[in-house]
Amino acid sequence: MKARKIFLTDDEIPRQWYNILADIKMNPPLGPDGNPISPDDLAPVFPMNIIEQEVSDQRWIDIPEPVLDVLTLWRPAPLVRARSLEKALNTPAKIYYKNESLSPPGSHKPNTAVPQAYYNKEFGIERITTETGAGQWGSALSFACCQFGIECNVYMVRVSFDQKPYRKSMMEAWGGRCMASPSNQTEAGRAALERDPNTPGSLGIAISEAIEAAVNDSTGKTRYSLGSVLNHVMLHQTIIGLEAKKQMDMIGQYPDVIIGCAGGGSNFAGLAFPFVQDKINGKQIEIYPVEPAACPTLTKGPFVYDHGDTAKYTPLLPMHSLGHAFVPPPFHAGGLRYHGMAPTVSQLVVEGLIEPKSVTQLDAYKAGVLVARSEGLIPAPETTHALACVVDEAIKAREEGKEKVILFTWSGHGLLDFGAYDKYFSGQLQNDVLPDEELAKSEKVFENHPKPQKLKSR
Amino acid sequence: MKARKIFLTDDEIPRQWYNILADIKMNPPLGPDGNPISPDDLAPVFPMNIIEQEVSDQRWIDIPEPVLDVLTLWRPAPLVRARSLEKALNTPAKIYYKNESLSPPGSHKPNTAVPQAYYNKEFGIERITTETGAGQWGSALSFACCQFGIECNVYMVRVSFDQKPYRKSMMEAWGGRCMASPSNQTEAGRAALERDPNTPGSLGIAISEAIEAAVNDSTGKTRYSLGSVLNHVMLHQTIIGLEAKKQMDMIGQYPDVIIGCAGGGSNFAGLAFPFVQDKINGKQIEIYPVEPAACPTLTKGPFVYDHGDTAKYTPLLPMHSLGHAFVPPPFHAGGLRYHGMAPTVSQLVVEGLIEPKSVTQLDAYKAGVLVARSEGLIPAPETTHALACVVDEAIKAREEGKEKVILFTWSGHGLLDFGAYDKYFSGQLQNDVLPDEELAKSEKVFENHPKPQKLKSR
Repeated sequence: MKARKIFLTDDEIPRQWYNILADIKMNPPLGPDGNPISPDDLAPVFPMNIIEQEVSDQRWIDIPEPVLDVLTLWRPAPLVRARSLEKALNTPAKIYYKNESLSPPGSHKPNTAVPQAYYNKEFGIERITTETGAGQWGSALSFACCQFGIECNVYMVRVSFDQKPYRKSMMEAWGGRCMASPSNQTEAGRAALERDPNTPGSLGIAISEAIEAAVNDSTGKTRYSLGSVLNHVMLHQTIIGLEAKKQMDMIGQYPDVIIGCAGGGSNFAGLAFPFVQDKINGKQIEIYPVEPAACPTLTKGPFVYDHGDTAKYTPLLPMHSLGHAFVPPPFHAGGLRYHGMAPTVSQLVVEGLIEPKSVTQLDAYKAGVLVARSEGLIPAPETTHALACVVDEAIKAREEGKEKVILFTWSGHGLLDFGAYDKYFSGQLQNDVLPDEELAKSEKVFENHPKPQKLKSR
Repeated sequence: MKARKIFLTDDEIPRQWYNILADIKMNPPLGPDGNPISPDDLAPVFPMNIIEQEVSDQRWIDIPEPVLDVLTLWRPAPLVRARSLEKALNTPAKIYYKNESLSPPGSHKPNTAVPQAYYNKEFGIERITTETGAGQWGSALSFACCQFGIECNVYMVRVSFDQKPYRKSMMEAWGGRCMASPSNQTEAGRAALERDPNTPGSLGIAISEAIEAAVNDSTGKTRYSLGSVLNHVMLHQTIIGLEAKKQMDMIGQYPDVIIGCAGGGSNFAGLAFPFVQDKINGKQIEIYPVEPAACPTLTKGPFVYDHGDTAKYTPLLPMHSLGHAFVPPPFHAGGLRYHGMAPTVSQLVVEGLIEPKSVTQLDAYKAGVLVARSEGLIPAPETTHALACVVDEAIKAREEGKEKVILFTWSGHGLLDFGAYDKYFSGQLQNDVLPDEELAKSEKVFENHPKPQKLKSR
């Protein structure tokens, strides 16, 4: 029996987050007038303590004690050597993963939900609104709000709301409220329903609804929360990579390749950013964000200024985007359906520090089942995208006879996603193809936006 | 921030199971002729290496290396201090739990599924049949069989099969096959359907089906596997309590009270037996198996010789039983619907070494939601029964001003049981009451059976 898991004790949890803004140059977000926005412009949407974090370029930021206290309900997360997968693939590669599926909601999402709920509470906020795609984020925020005694209202993309009723139940178990989006409770929702009463919904629309519900609340005690994309979200997620570094150190290893699935970018960034810092400082390391071929934001979308939501409530963000009106085909990785990508992750692609990959739905599930049958755990549909890339890299290592060290994030479990697995096993899933004309059409929306600079940090 | 979790490294996993048969006297199982059965009588049902373990009275039994290897996919399981629950209850009690929900199938069940699959494989068996109630056991055995390359056929009690389609999907993800029971593929199943075509099924019927399918297979390469009740199952589960003891030692604690939910008895026994050994040797400790008031095997059923299944395929076992034809009301803790109880657990009740408790369904869910909102994790319906007892004990400790140490098993997560939570939240759940006449009627089946002796081990 050889050891598989590397634990940190609760006391060894990282006490600071790593802020990549200290190490890269970024284009600023722009307001409706085309000028950089100020913190005050965001005040109706987020509490000021979070806005300050969003724009901070301090390299290390302390994690508040009450946040650490809740995080230790499940963190530090184990680093696991995927020995059974290595054996199944007969690869000389050493494969490690951070198991983020062990949190109460089942994904990495509470890593940022918990500090966000805490900062809102500190600022005197009593209710948080948000959107959710697959339901992972909505459940994470419900869980976090429950820990700090705040109300939580979640707009859930309708296609997922219908496919995964248990996510709503989970939110309710923690006292959250979950509505299908588009709803008839907001201007943005009603407009979307008017355009298409049978729309499956999209993250872009749901974000618009949640922002509107926060901003329009007359008590002033409601704010909005986003589970990905923004700088402070990436910051909070770096605890994944910081733990992983400590754990790799403990066994005298360092990764050659880092892999994470990327929807809005937070799970990928969480693992990768602390290693990107090393790469900026000269370390040799391959870093791959992996996205679905049916929503190829990084691999096919241009680097532009675009809105984060359909109704254009958000500032213009410098990012890779398929266009803020993009509605992807109904593939099953709900967490990877976003039209844009975190500006920080986008900037790293521009700089060539990370190299995006895309995989098809069928390849993703094939890898997911292979891994479930070796490592045991059932991966979330999002995670299977990372797994497809891991399997490719492990086979390449075998072919090249190289003892590579591969590190990836297991972003979540698939226990509430069996509907999709059933379809895969019964042959009902297919590879959605996005014709280039289709992409070009959806990208028209940012033709007249200002253009971001292709900054180089080094 | 105070530490919550006590980890063991993979290397610290226990290397031997504790066999309580070395420390207590037992009535023997009886064959159809009323005489004690021999190992050979069981040979068509189980492989001989497992039968030898079933009748062994060796106190410590080595865990085979390949079994340890698979167990470390998730074990050792963390011991967790439930600090947030303590705070929510404002109790001076220290509450600890073994988190058995972290295994791939989500419960303690693979602790025995893995060794059972291993021993069958060693014996040259190619296919295992079994029954499952809530689906936890069927998924655990599918997972374990997948690890050792054996086929797995699962008969799932129809009411759960319909309520929880995702359990079938989970079994299929690991390559298992799952059928609703009663099925039309066995004599026992067809007979049950003839008696009542709309029967919700029962564990007793499903066991009959699985045994029949194993015994009637003409290749001789099929055997049956049981997920609870039998001695070797309790043996395998003691890894829970043995780990817990090491972990309690590490922090200088010893429990005053031990609590586990009890259906067939294996989750309870797994935690409790290593501590029962201490109690036999003079240690002061309260030990409570907790069952549903609607299936009150230990608290209302007599200690008798009864069959483990409805079709009377199994030997007569000395145990507390509600009668082998008992079909409990359709409450939602599928894993606690069994008419009987492990003979070893039953014997401990007879001897007064452990003290059974029962709780109602509504009290169980109330405790489950309280705990989900403090500790975060969503408990399985079975686990909520233990939680109701934990909450009672913690409140008692507060009232008495005592710093009691309470230790319990978190037998599984409730992520595939949200249907039941939804009903609880919408007020559709009620407390099923079992009239005494009803119990007396179902107990008629063992009136003419031999009577077990009330043995005293001390």
